[in-house]
Amino acid sequence: MDFEQAVDSFTDRDWQETTDGTVRLALVGLGWWTVDEAIPAIRETDLCEVTVLVSRSQEKAQRFADEAGVPHAISGDAYHDGECADEYDAVYVATPNAYHLEYVETAADLGKAVLCEKPMEATVERAEQMAAVADDAGIPLMVAYRMHTEPAVRRARELVESGAIGEPVQVYGNNSQSLLSIIDDPDQWRLDPDASGYGTSMMDLGIYPINTTRFILGSDPVSVQAQMASTHEAFREVPDERSTATAVYDDGVYAAFTATQNAYEDTELTITGMDGQLTLSPAFHMECELTVETDDRMFSVSADDVNEMTEEFDYFADRVLSGEPLYADGDHGLYDMRVLEALHESAETGATVKLQ
Amino acid sequence: MDFEQAVDSFTDRDWQETTDGTVRLALVGLGWWTVDEAIPAIRETDLCEVTVLVSRSQEKAQRFADEAGVPHAISGDAYHDGECADEYDAVYVATPNAYHLEYVETAADLGKAVLCEKPMEATVERAEQMAAVADDAGIPLMVAYRMHTEPAVRRARELVESGAIGEPVQVYGNNSQSLLSIIDDPDQWRLDPDASGYGTSMMDLGIYPINTTRFILGSDPVSVQAQMASTHEAFREVPDERSTATAVYDDGVYAAFTATQNAYEDTELTITGMDGQLTLSPAFHMECELTVETDDRMFSVSADDVNEMTEEFDYFADRVLSGEPLYADGDHGLYDMRVLEALHESAETGATVKLQ
Repeated sequence: MDFEQAVDSFTDRDWQETTDGTVRLALVGLGWWTVDEAIPAIRETDLCEVTVLVSRSQEKAQRFADEAGVPHAISGDAYHDGECADEYDAVYVATPNAYHLEYVETAADLGKAVLCEKPMEATVERAEQMAAVADDAGIPLMVAYRMHTEPAVRRARELVESGAIGEPVQVYGNNSQSLLSIIDDPDQWRLDPDASGYGTSMMDLGIYPINTTRFILGSDPVSVQAQMASTHEAFREVPDERSTATAVYDDGVYAAFTATQNAYEDTELTITGMDGQLTLSPAFHMECELTVETDDRMFSVSADDVNEMTEEFDYFADRVLSGEPLYADGDHGLYDMRVLEALHESAETGATVKLQ
Repeated sequence: MDFEQAVDSFTDRDWQETTDGTVRLALVGLGWWTVDEAIPAIRETDLCEVTVLVSRSQEKAQRFADEAGVPHAISGDAYHDGECADEYDAVYVATPNAYHLEYVETAADLGKAVLCEKPMEATVERAEQMAAVADDAGIPLMVAYRMHTEPAVRRARELVESGAIGEPVQVYGNNSQSLLSIIDDPDQWRLDPDASGYGTSMMDLGIYPINTTRFILGSDPVSVQAQMASTHEAFREVPDERSTATAVYDDGVYAAFTATQNAYEDTELTITGMDGQLTLSPAFHMECELTVETDDRMFSVSADDVNEMTEEFDYFADRVLSGEPLYADGDHGLYDMRVLEALHESAETGATVKLQ
């Protein structure tokens, strides 16, 4: 792929296998992400339809179902009892991290495909259980990284693969935001290790640049370091209000990452090669602009009319309907969980942690 | 300082104490940096004049002196013997790192002020000796970081101090270049640990973002991690063709740095605060553009007509002539040497290394 091709075919759905059929979805967990982002985005898909909403309380589910015109609303308990199972083909799990597993277990029992939000679960052990459960049941399990079907990220991967910036050498990624400005509640689940897992800034934010680097380079972190701290009172239960990390990827690329839940919002991913540099900025919060620079060329491009969530749900449905392999699967998500655990271990012990 | 002030007074020499007098300089080490950058820049200063060139061989010194119209040319041995000592007031040391000390020792013996290139020396021990020698002799010793008198960096520091981006939270800095494209010789001194010290990418390049962060924040690294590797044949003697690092500064700012001597050229320093972000990009290779962004404002400014080396030499001369304290002094330079040593120790042992 050269620069012209990257621009000309920027929003092409190069992953598309089918245009026929509909995947009926049960959405589990009705936080702002599901209500404000997922439901409107799914309305724009070609291959998905929301048929069931699931929340802890049936009343809450019913209220959102009425608002959004979704035919069925059930409680979590009813979901686990198999209620409405004939009304949906697949489940989107967007609960707090530590509740992902139980909803996937039920989906596996019922033979439903699963799209599970990132990070996969709260701990490596629970993510392992999830991958095993899905494997045993033979259901498709996809982790909802969202960036893998963002056009800028796909074109970035193709450009790197085709040598547009030469051999990749180093990476920097950042994901910072002001969590308490978004959700003005110190008791929210992202600040509660029982619900979130190892922490908050790397689990919730740092995972974006770390994972998107995996996707673009086709390479995985094998050696990581991190330093972390919490100072603000609202972050007292988690170790990483702010964090910084290094990672060596298995292709020899050296990466640095920063993430914080308590600063000015900024997202960036920069890959420097021998002959050029590729930057996504902004990168991770539902808008993504690609800039590629070499000694003699520079261009920037973004797809303002593409909704990342629409792309993600259509990709998932495409794979469920076509039966083709999907990315990112449970093993891929599990590897990120090991990286996240390793980062927290490094911050705690001060030692470099090797993976693989 | 607000944004308007930063733009209006962008190139003000706020450091200036005197406009009277001339500091006559002996330049030691006639590599491309001295010949192509320093000599033309000094010609533009208000307070400096080059009167002596010093090189290993008198012939080489004479050739460059003839070309540049400098009245005196001597060998290193002659310099150490005190030849021409009446012809200069101060010495600029731009030899390979491991030869800095001997030239500063002679300058101290002769009671001459010293401007010494960064990094201060090849090792902490030799830098300690240099600081002690200068202290004992009572000569002014300044380490030539160059960025401290770059207008964009000075305004960045003032804006951060005045709260323009809120409390600083995190930093990212990069300095990458293709050394073999600049100097096409695998036997050059930057790739020889006997001449360069601990390594090449952090010693020569990473020191820019690490030190500029110290200057802008008024804060020092207290805990560092690093990973490094060399793969290209020309880098076989040094451990860090490419490197990545984390650093916690003593004000609680979390930083990530990357540096490489073998990739596409790019320099950047980004400081993210609670309320905004400040970026220098490009940052470190003789051009520097400042961008400041908050929720409701954004501006970019650079000083294309300012030569960083001219500013640096005039600042040094200003301090020599006025007798006012100078920055960065030997203790400041020594601290960077400890940070560099700690980064290499971390890369070697895998452990986080504490300073202070």
